[in-house]
Amino acid sequence: MGANPNPLILVSPYRIPMSVRVGILGATGAVGQRFIQLLDDHPTFDLATVTASDDSAGKRYDEAAKWRVDTPIPDDVADMEVQRTAADAVPDDLDLIFSSLPSGVAADVEPEFAEAGYVVSSNSSNDRMAEDVPLTIPEINADHLGLIEVQRDERGWDGALIKNPNCSTITMVPTLAALDEFGLDRVHVTTLQAVSGAGYDGVTSMEIIDNAIPHIGGEEEKMESESRKLLGSFDGAALSLHDAEVNASCNRIPTLDGHLESVFADLADDPDVEAVAEAMREYPGVDLPSAPEQLIHVFDDPMRPQPRLDRNLEGGMAVAAGGIQETANGIKYNCLAHNTIRGAAGASVLNGELLVEEGWV
Amino acid sequence: MGANPNPLILVSPYRIPMSVRVGILGATGAVGQRFIQLLDDHPTFDLATVTASDDSAGKRYDEAAKWRVDTPIPDDVADMEVQRTAADAVPDDLDLIFSSLPSGVAADVEPEFAEAGYVVSSNSSNDRMAEDVPLTIPEINADHLGLIEVQRDERGWDGALIKNPNCSTITMVPTLAALDEFGLDRVHVTTLQAVSGAGYDGVTSMEIIDNAIPHIGGEEEKMESESRKLLGSFDGAALSLHDAEVNASCNRIPTLDGHLESVFADLADDPDVEAVAEAMREYPGVDLPSAPEQLIHVFDDPMRPQPRLDRNLEGGMAVAAGGIQETANGIKYNCLAHNTIRGAAGASVLNGELLVEEGWV
Amino acid sequence: MGANPNPLILVSPYRIPMSVRVGILGATGAVGQRFIQLLDDHPTFDLATVTASDDSAGKRYDEAAKWRVDTPIPDDVADMEVQRTAADAVPDDLDLIFSSLPSGVAADVEPEFAEAGYVVSSNSSNDRMAEDVPLTIPEINADHLGLIEVQRDERGWDGALIKNPNCSTITMVPTLAALDEFGLDRVHVTTLQAVSGAGYDGVTSMEIIDNAIPHIGGEEEKMESESRKLLGSFDGAALSLHDAEVNASCNRIPTLDGHLESVFADLADDPDVEAVAEAMREYPGVDLPSAPEQLIHVFDDPMRPQPRLDRNLEGGMAVAAGGIQETANGIKYNCLAHNTIRGAAGASVLNGELLVEEGWV
Amino acid sequence: MGANPNPLILVSPYRIPMSVRVGILGATGAVGQRFIQLLDDHPTFDLATVTASDDSAGKRYDEAAKWRVDTPIPDDVADMEVQRTAADAVPDDLDLIFSSLPSGVAADVEPEFAEAGYVVSSNSSNDRMAEDVPLTIPEINADHLGLIEVQRDERGWDGALIKNPNCSTITMVPTLAALDEFGLDRVHVTTLQAVSGAGYDGVTSMEIIDNAIPHIGGEEEKMESESRKLLGSFDGAALSLHDAEVNASCNRIPTLDGHLESVFADLADDPDVEAVAEAMREYPGVDLPSAPEQLIHVFDDPMRPQPRLDRNLEGGMAVAAGGIQETANGIKYNCLAHNTIRGAAGASVLNGELLVEEGWV
Repeated sequence: MGANPNPLILVSPYRIPMSVRVGILGATGAVGQRFIQLLDDHPTFDLATVTASDDSAGKRYDEAAKWRVDTPIPDDVADMEVQRTAADAVPDDLDLIFSSLPSGVAADVEPEFAEAGYVVSSNSSNDRMAEDVPLTIPEINADHLGLIEVQRDERGWDGALIKNPNCSTITMVPTLAALDEFGLDRVHVTTLQAVSGAGYDGVTSMEIIDNAIPHIGGEEEKMESESRKLLGSFDGAALSLHDAEVNASCNRIPTLDGHLESVFADLADDPDVEAVAEAMREYPGVDLPSAPEQLIHVFDDPMRPQPRLDRNLEGGMAVAAGGIQETANGIKYNCLAHNTIRGAAGASVLNGELLVEEGWV
Repeated sequence: MGANPNPLILVSPYRIPMSVRVGILGATGAVGQRFIQLLDDHPTFDLATVTASDDSAGKRYDEAAKWRVDTPIPDDVADMEVQRTAADAVPDDLDLIFSSLPSGVAADVEPEFAEAGYVVSSNSSNDRMAEDVPLTIPEINADHLGLIEVQRDERGWDGALIKNPNCSTITMVPTLAALDEFGLDRVHVTTLQAVSGAGYDGVTSMEIIDNAIPHIGGEEEKMESESRKLLGSFDGAALSLHDAEVNASCNRIPTLDGHLESVFADLADDPDVEAVAEAMREYPGVDLPSAPEQLIHVFDDPMRPQPRLDRNLEGGMAVAAGGIQETANGIKYNCLAHNTIRGAAGASVLNGELLVEEGWV
Repeated sequence: MGANPNPLILVSPYRIPMSVRVGILGATGAVGQRFIQLLDDHPTFDLATVTASDDSAGKRYDEAAKWRVDTPIPDDVADMEVQRTAADAVPDDLDLIFSSLPSGVAADVEPEFAEAGYVVSSNSSNDRMAEDVPLTIPEINADHLGLIEVQRDERGWDGALIKNPNCSTITMVPTLAALDEFGLDRVHVTTLQAVSGAGYDGVTSMEIIDNAIPHIGGEEEKMESESRKLLGSFDGAALSLHDAEVNASCNRIPTLDGHLESVFADLADDPDVEAVAEAMREYPGVDLPSAPEQLIHVFDDPMRPQPRLDRNLEGGMAVAAGGIQETANGIKYNCLAHNTIRGAAGASVLNGELLVEEGWV
Repeated sequence: MGANPNPLILVSPYRIPMSVRVGILGATGAVGQRFIQLLDDHPTFDLATVTASDDSAGKRYDEAAKWRVDTPIPDDVADMEVQRTAADAVPDDLDLIFSSLPSGVAADVEPEFAEAGYVVSSNSSNDRMAEDVPLTIPEINADHLGLIEVQRDERGWDGALIKNPNCSTITMVPTLAALDEFGLDRVHVTTLQAVSGAGYDGVTSMEIIDNAIPHIGGEEEKMESESRKLLGSFDGAALSLHDAEVNASCNRIPTLDGHLESVFADLADDPDVEAVAEAMREYPGVDLPSAPEQLIHVFDDPMRPQPRLDRNLEGGMAVAAGGIQETANGIKYNCLAHNTIRGAAGASVLNGELLVEEGWV
């Protein structure tokens, strides 16, 4: 039987020919497990090291991790010995480090790795808004990687630290980037976020069944600031934030995966629905192994996108939009992305591919 | 045991002394059943007649209705004979008619009843925006009842037709009314609406479990237009819409009852959070049997209001707000109401009480 | 408005005239909070003391407890100072102690209280199967309280320790007691249990949305052993277990409150459905403040009982049954009870009322 | 990126070399759509015709069907013209017909097709218990196909009608077949069934969120009778039912796909857990394109199988078991299968493959 009822396969030609040895910091957690899943059979990246907290160090990975991802632990990873999360505990010859540490831990550890010469592609929220840290979505602002030179100059690092944005930010920003040509001015966005965004134990069933929660700590601030940095411009020396005003309201709903967001965008120009849809559909992608063929899928059916039906578009790496309508001052629409793939581990992996492609690794 | 784990009781003194004979059009449907529940033991209203479609006419109520409300059918209602939904099929001496007919049916039938001399308090969506039809929330715009004179003049009716707004509208408008003193200018609202708003069979389980739906047909237009009518002013002859711009995006989520809404309000003035909270908390109520003691309950905890925890405030007749924060141009906050009580049958009953209090019945 | 959309009120005459001073051990947890809710306005019990872990001792109750019950903290309880959970930390003049401690803690602490002279009515699972500890449902086996004499003789206590059964046990046992007259022989029961049975944080949303979990640690053993003790006979000196064989399979489903259980019962006699229904409906209740008027409500509609519709019958203190059908060797049916009211705090309170009524307090 | 986060692929060698032209009766419904999904890229079956009700006949398939499956409509199917569901409306040269008609319609139409010479592999519930109709799971009772000779003799058909069992039956029967060597005597099974078993519109969200429904019309009778037929023996002339007694209780829970069932099996022998697990694990499969490599996957972890985690084992065509424990008279365990793949369309397709392999087509 060739039928595939729920296909998540990305068929990617090997576009990055060399082998790159990578490690994962915080490999036993929820995002760490997703990293392992995405790196299994990766065309370029060769997982060489996994680290976790001191409690887990020294154990076999399959003993240390409570594996909860929906595919089995890859056999070679199951047998790996978990290392301490410290620069002196991992092999010298790693080319690239992925990090999904808790932000409090990451704030101390990631600079230590960068100083020791490792290039770190991190999903953790610390330092995302630091002036010399690239916050990158390859399709949107690959040129911001130039900040690595600034970072190395200022911090005296041989390595580097780059970040991907928060899951709720990344869901919306590709659509805003597509709108920028029409004079993006003010944004009001309200999110309907899935429970997996809080981690496996983050939201109890008693809290969310037959319910919704109108607040997610720190999330609104992240959306409001990270969006402006991602859309900002880099002149080779410093980064200027985009001057659009972004207002966010964040809610948790009883959905497993996939953040849905309702966006109102004030635009200086007055594009019609078709022009907006076309700008989104034709927003250029990148030629990297984990990148989707089409960055933004636009639905004509106003009932779409829906989290359960559309979160797995192009292996969870595409963004979906729909319900585009004109308003008095611009447009409104909905957008959606898979929060733990495009919104977390997949975003870091894609940034890692960009780092390789651009020669930083 | 005196404990009441989930109390929904409104203790109301008899403020309207006379007995009023009422009927319900469309009494077997979901909202019709909620009318029956709310009218049971009502201090003033005496349910005398229930109507339904021709298929049900002639049957006992408990045979005609598939009762789905969480309290038993009142004994006296169970035994009632269901009547046809026609002015010549109900007793002449009814003082007040409640209507929860499908809007297509209501558009024909409600004018027929009004012409025949009945005062109709309707939850159906037809004619809500008609220039001579009062669209009323007693605490917000009781003076709009004066339109009944205009209506009678224009249509030659002895009776009258008044409407309550859509459930998603009524959740937000009390908070907007409280903000009006600060110069309400633009509104961006995104809803997270419960499945009961679509009726008992409106949303299948396959559609909504682990999902959300980013569109509810006609809902956004209702919120955008009804809000401006409710907040508009009546000069004794005609009604002017409020000139605020209202932009709505409506979503369905897997919650049973209670609409949660995220609101951004641009304000001409620059009130701080405390001033806004105070304006909401102190927004005046009305002295009617079904009215809550406090119209708007304001939470300091940003995690509230939540649908499951707060939808039953004051018997489901209060509105809740929380998460008030300043923005560049005004404020943002969340609000919540029980969509089938304050947002439907309870709204019509409250309007009926106002009609009696003001002498129209 | 007198309508009460979801009434849970038990109107009970004062049948126990005196005032009884009570304390709650473990008052800040989920069951502890439910105790406080049920004791608010209790006709006889006067809550005098609340205890918690050393971390909470010394704080005001409303500071120590993360209140999650759907009614507000009673004002007088909010102000109470939380005490250490130790016999020397509570007033001497308490008449009755309710315990909802974690079973590991309870195993040490409850005997200490009983030795110090307190009568302890406990919901914790430790010692339920001890030979000299009464495991009691007042309607089923009130005579087992006679074991207190045995207990005092053996342990040299002035106080006493009595237990109520596990929530899944108590849902089924009233129906089995009603069947005993037909020669109860073998039982096969499969449970569909609500998430609240695991405590507020017991089941994460990621575990249970769009899912079910086919195992609950220790639950099957509890059902199999506790049932036989509850249905056993006490001859004044020792207790004999009922000789029915009980086989249980326990599952967790995405329901908030209310355990639903499918039971197959082999019976020596061959009663028809009506005889079984009548035996259940007419199973005698008790005259205690928290007791339901009718212990077992039997539905003719095979679609009932359902957790959401029927868990609150008689304030959550009644049991529901339905779907009774004959099988080759007996009958099958479904039963339901509110797991945190009749299945936990309410069960302990009812046992406390029995202790008073019978003169042990 | 080669990672596949949720793989459902069955990699099957072409074991049936010829091309077989097939049609689907009732192709626009939920099961019909699943047929189309499973037949896309099938190694042998070539979909030539789709039929639906008269309302849809003459339309393009993508206009007639409200497509709800999670993969796109195959392009060639989208363009097909829907035919009437009648033997004279489909091509003469079809080799095999799949049917997912409503059972009321199927009872008339399927015999008409069989009489006209078509071999019909049907998922509809009509005629499953007819004495001359094979009810088949290829791995369990492929020899029952011999009944086709009896059927043709008695009915004078050139074609044939064969059936697959109900989704809840097929979940359990493979495990019972594995237990038969231990002297299968009595079975008590309670189901926790997913909402998709009732069809797309079968269970409303208001009925099932925060709830469970203890009855599914006709389901228990199907499980009790179909199981005994599937496990029965065919002597070349007639079929004898297995003499085990099967007692079923069927419940609906808020899960999208995957029926979980708790089984108690009385056994004449006294196998230990390991012997039972081995019998299940080693139960032989069949060499057909849609068949799983291993029919029954047995988990040692008592928390498994879970619907969301395990329903897609081997493309949804495997059965899972776990929680095996000894009881006084045999064993208890849980089992799980994907109700719309192994339990419906996939079961019919597999039967179709068996018909081809055995030369009936």
